[in-house]
Amino acid sequence: MDIKKQLLALGKILPQPPQAVGNYKPFIVAGEMAFISGQLPIKDGRIIYKGKLGGELCIEEGKQAAELCALNILSQIAELEKEYTFKKLIKIEGCINSTSAFTQHANVLDGASDLFTSVLPKQAGHTRSVIGCSSLPLNAAIEIIATVEVR
Amino acid sequence: MDIKKQLLALGKILPQPPQAVGNYKPFIVAGEMAFISGQLPIKDGRIIYKGKLGGELCIEEGKQAAELCALNILSQIAELEKEYTFKKLIKIEGCINSTSAFTQHANVLDGASDLFTSVLPKQAGHTRSVIGCSSLPLNAAIEIIATVEVR
Amino acid sequence: MDIKKQLLALGKILPQPPQAVGNYKPFIVAGEMAFISGQLPIKDGRIIYKGKLGGELCIEEGKQAAELCALNILSQIAELEKEYTFKKLIKIEGCINSTSAFTQHANVLDGASDLFTSVLPKQAGHTRSVIGCSSLPLNAAIEIIATVEVR
Repeated sequence: MDIKKQLLALGKILPQPPQAVGNYKPFIVAGEMAFISGQLPIKDGRIIYKGKLGGELCIEEGKQAAELCALNILSQIAELEKEYTFKKLIKIEGCINSTSAFTQHANVLDGASDLFTSVLPKQAGHTRSVIGCSSLPLNAAIEIIATVEVR
Repeated sequence: MDIKKQLLALGKILPQPPQAVGNYKPFIVAGEMAFISGQLPIKDGRIIYKGKLGGELCIEEGKQAAELCALNILSQIAELEKEYTFKKLIKIEGCINSTSAFTQHANVLDGASDLFTSVLPKQAGHTRSVIGCSSLPLNAAIEIIATVEVR
Repeated sequence: MDIKKQLLALGKILPQPPQAVGNYKPFIVAGEMAFISGQLPIKDGRIIYKGKLGGELCIEEGKQAAELCALNILSQIAELEKEYTFKKLIKIEGCINSTSAFTQHANVLDGASDLFTSVLPKQAGHTRSVIGCSSLPLNAAIEIIATVEVR
């Protein structure tokens, strides 16, 4: 499957995989599963969406931030594909920087789920969880952790 | 193992598995593990326990909310059993909607762990983590994510 | 690999594995993966680092708290080694007790990642995620959840 071409057909560009911002690896394969480090809404080394949902950010900005995290996850999957065959998404965990009154987490995370569904028609089914966080690294609006199946 | 009968013997009814509240699946099997999407304290489509521990909710309500999440996890395991053999629980992750001063997370999550121990005598041993969240979807009091082993 | 000796060479002592603070197990093996319950910055049964990053705790205290969680994870891996061969770290998830303005999560979690790198030279590569929590059990400064590969 060519993630890059699929994205282009949607008018989107596959980003370079973001560098780790600490002493760790972007992904690790164990058995037939690959674990991808938490991805932030980062582009060209800069956090694009900062702040809290329920505060300075509206739902639409949150969805765009989730989509940007999903693009970065796809860039890591494209790296994985240099050595492994990507089989399917297993799960995504959405961590949303939020005020204490925020309740629309599912809408925000759909920004990521919808992109996966568009780009990976047969491999995009996934399980999910989503929570509100009191803070996130570099004041990012959202962080998404993905686990995928490979061969 | 008949989860439905085990629950009935405890005077509890196995609920219908809740529908996903976004673009995702209730569970996915990869290899010999099944990943279950985050479960809320929901019954008949309605969140029963809303609000924050350390705020409007007391520990006892938190434990009941955790038990309701566990019931919904059991309902997903019962669905899984239509195609797979459920082998054992692996882990549960408890995410508790809380004020910044709350400290009794372990007591609350025991509401779920105790139900699993009662219903699944030989398959209930599990690992756990539990954190406090600034907010949760639909203002749910708690969300629990489960990973189980299947064959 | 002798974790105890490796630690001693760094002037550190392998702690006794902390007891579970609820109805659950310290670790579970499924297939070739071992899941370790969330570890707190606990020593001799007492939480050593309490409070919030961005509040009463400075980054250096946060890093020390993360290192103490990592020591407790190593103590669980040493227990695992009584029955299994430890192959490698897969991932760590850092949950930091934080105020809403905290942003330096990666620095804090490096306290754990750096210890793993020193102690497990060939098995320490890992993926990571890190979030800010509104509260944690017993007011712990940080909780770290680890997943490892075994044989």
